Amino acid sequence: MPNVGVLLSGCGFLDGAEIHESVLTLLALDQQGATIICCAPKVSFAVVDHLTKKPTGEKRDVLAEAARIARGEIRDVATVQATQLDALILPGGFGAAKNLCNFAEKGAACTVHPEVERLIGDCLAARKPVGAICIAPALLARIAGKRGVKATLTIGNDAGTAGAIVAMGCVHENRPVTEVAVDRAHKVVSTPAYMLGPGPAAVFEGIRKLVEQVLALI
Amino acid sequence: MPNVGVLLSGCGFLDGAEIHESVLTLLALDQQGATIICCAPKVSFAVVDHLTKKPTGEKRDVLAEAARIARGEIRDVATVQATQLDALILPGGFGAAKNLCNFAEKGAACTVHPEVERLIGDCLAARKPVGAICIAPALLARIAGKRGVKATLTIGNDAGTAGAIVAMGCVHENRPVTEVAVDRAHKVVSTPAYMLGPGPAAVFEGIRKLVEQVLALI
Repeated sequence: MPNVGVLLSGCGFLDGAEIHESVLTLLALDQQGATIICCAPKVSFAVVDHLTKKPTGEKRDVLAEAARIARGEIRDVATVQATQLDALILPGGFGAAKNLCNFAEKGAACTVHPEVERLIGDCLAARKPVGAICIAPALLARIAGKRGVKATLTIGNDAGTAGAIVAMGCVHENRPVTEVAVDRAHKVVSTPAYMLGPGPAAVFEGIRKLVEQVLALI
Repeated sequence: MPNVGVLLSGCGFLDGAEIHESVLTLLALDQQGATIICCAPKVSFAVVDHLTKKPTGEKRDVLAEAARIARGEIRDVATVQATQLDALILPGGFGAAKNLCNFAEKGAACTVHPEVERLIGDCLAARKPVGAICIAPALLARIAGKRGVKATLTIGNDAGTAGAIVAMGCVHENRPVTEVAVDRAHKVVSTPAYMLGPGPAAVFEGIRKLVEQVLALI
C-alpha cells in the first residue's frame, strides 16, 4: 500500500483548502487502498466568512482547521519528510494560494512557506509523483520552475493563471474539469476541479483520474 | 430533478457536521442529478480544536461554518419549507447531536432546535423521504417518536445509542457501515457512516446507497 501525503491549507475554499476537493481526494485514495498522511503548516491565516464572502478580521491556525477535514489525523508539515511518502497530492482552494504561498497576492513573484517548499521540492527531486488540484498547480509551478523542472500543468483555461504558470517556468495545457494533464517525464499530474466547477460529481471525475495517474507513476 | 435538502450543523465532526459525510452526500446527490438545497440553523456553538480534541472556549456560528462545506450556497433553515423539498438528508457529526438538538447532553430527553424540528416534522408529516447518517438518526428518532412515527433506524451497533432510539419511540436495527436501514412505510433511510468508520470509501458505499434509496422513495 503506497503512502500518499495530502497537503492541506485550512478548511474552506475562501481562506483554506477547498473542502470538496480535499474529501474527494481522500475518497479516491481510500478507494485505491492507499495509506493517507494528511499534513498542513502551523501558520495563522485571515478568516473569510463563507456566507458573506468578506474577511472577518479574525485569525485561525491552518493546521488546526485542516484537522477538521482530516478528522484529527494530521501532522505538521514540518515533521513530514519526502522519504516517508511515495507520492504527494495538493488540493486547491484559496488556502493553497494564500496560506501555503502568497500567489494570490504576488502572482508569479510569489514566495512559498519554507516547510511546504522543502517537502514539495524534495518530492520533485526524488521523482516522487506530485498531484496538484484547482489552483495548487500555481504553487507547484513556483517550486518546480525555481528548480528548472519545466512541468506541464493545467488549471483549466484561465488565461491569467495559465500565463503566471508559464512565467514561473512551467508549461500550461487547457483541460476540462473531468480530465487531467499528465506529465510523465516529471511525474506531475493536475486537474482543474473548482477552477471550472460545476459541482462535486464532475470534480470527482477529474480527481479520481488524478489519483489513479499519481499512483500509476509511483 | 428532485430538490433535496441537506441539513448541516457546522463544519467538523467534533463540533459540527461530519465533513466527509456531508461532502459524500453532496457527491452522491450530484451524481444522481438532484438539485441540492443546503441549510443550517443560525445559532452559535462551542468550538472544539480538532487537533487537541479539546474545547477552545470560542463560539462560532453554525450557518457561517456550514457555508464552508456548501461553498456559500446555503440557506438559514428558518427560510426553508418542506413544500420546497422532495426529500431531506441529515449528515452526522457531533453537531447533529449538539447544535441541532442536545442529544449529546440529554440523551432520549433531548430537545430540538425549533426550526430544525419544524422542517423535519413537516417532512415526516408530508411523507417526504428523510435520510439520516451516523448519529443523525437519534435526532430524527426524537422528532418522529414525539409524533407517533415508529420509524426503523440504524446507527450501526452502539447499544447505548440504539437504546436511546428505542426510548424515544422508534425501532433500531444493527447495520454495517456499507449498508442502510430502509423503512419504506415511514420513508426513512439511515446508514452508520462514522459511527463505525473506518474511512471515506466504506462510508461512501453506505451514503451512496442511502441517497439512492431516499430518491427512490420520492
